[in-house]
Amino acid sequence: MSDTISGAAKERLLRLMRLLEIQAAAGETSPVTSAQAEQLTGWPRDTIRKDISCLAGGQAVGSSAGYDPLLLIPLIKKALGLDRRRTFCVVGLGRLGSAYLNFAPAELEEFELAAGFDTNVNRVEILKAQAPLYPAYKMAEVISRFGIEIALLCVPAAAAQTAAEKCVGAGIRGILNFAPLALSLPQGVAVRNVFVTDELRSLAIKM
Amino acid sequence: MSDTISGAAKERLLRLMRLLEIQAAAGETSPVTSAQAEQLTGWPRDTIRKDISCLAGGQAVGSSAGYDPLLLIPLIKKALGLDRRRTFCVVGLGRLGSAYLNFAPAELEEFELAAGFDTNVNRVEILKAQAPLYPAYKMAEVISRFGIEIALLCVPAAAAQTAAEKCVGAGIRGILNFAPLALSLPQGVAVRNVFVTDELRSLAIKM
Repeated sequence: MSDTISGAAKERLLRLMRLLEIQAAAGETSPVTSAQAEQLTGWPRDTIRKDISCLAGGQAVGSSAGYDPLLLIPLIKKALGLDRRRTFCVVGLGRLGSAYLNFAPAELEEFELAAGFDTNVNRVEILKAQAPLYPAYKMAEVISRFGIEIALLCVPAAAAQTAAEKCVGAGIRGILNFAPLALSLPQGVAVRNVFVTDELRSLAIKM
Repeated sequence: MSDTISGAAKERLLRLMRLLEIQAAAGETSPVTSAQAEQLTGWPRDTIRKDISCLAGGQAVGSSAGYDPLLLIPLIKKALGLDRRRTFCVVGLGRLGSAYLNFAPAELEEFELAAGFDTNVNRVEILKAQAPLYPAYKMAEVISRFGIEIALLCVPAAAAQTAAEKCVGAGIRGILNFAPLALSLPQGVAVRNVFVTDELRSLAIKM
């Protein structure tokens, strides 16, 4: 089903789901009207209604009182393909990369750390993690053996393009790129950049 | 001027500016038509035209050949208030926080690291940074003395709300929150969450 929803609609649904999850975690689980969803997300209620009707496939998630978040959340999750666990690896175990080795499991329940890699063999031996760590020369072998899907790219900028290509060659289909440069990769590989400068700018324009 | 542009328009302009910067860095500085901008950003060309006409204030940034990126980039930067340097501090100097102490200056030219804080005095003494590091009990004093505007909140989730409140009490107006929880802060304080789970989800729906 996720292939029939447009990219923009997927992003809207993801954001709506996330906001409903935050409300639910705070104990707020009463029905949400499309007007409330409009206020929550900033998108027109007609757009929200259309997005939700697309994914419901006839299933009733709403009444005149609004959408039931406890029905809507799993429905969106399934439609977006987030209802199965994906494996990821961390490439580059400096300060940033090693920080991502030890996130609490609950925080990442949809994503499972499968491996970490670094060119520095000492670092690989010393660091503690919930998954095995390997020297970088074993990257291609380990990624393809375990069918790892996602890489968190935490290497220095100068090493990022080469490391990313190695990941893709081994079967990685999605890269969360923390190295401050634009990667050039074949079509079909999803890349999402997390640049602190961009985040700071996005924050600054709200101040 | 930045107060007269809507929040949504600001976000669109920031994204357009960022994409033009990436192109310019790759040597691509020929004029951009609104049709090309539509393709680049995914937004309707009429919206883009309206956003740009809003900020130009009569100044010519385009000809029939399109917008000149070398004129448009600084114009957007100014309109968004990104043409002045802002100071930030890093609160919590564990792996993640200490990673943000040492970003290359060029990478952060619009933002200047002014201080770092940690409850662990040893850590404050041992870590190397381009700015002074202080024990956490000096946070309020240092933030207000130097007029620091932004905090990168890198403390554990359990400590985040208290640390954020301390920041705001000392004069911080924007928080980039890396702690995996929703902060509850007074209106007027800008918060942007950077959660690895959210980034992984956004990546996964593109795969």
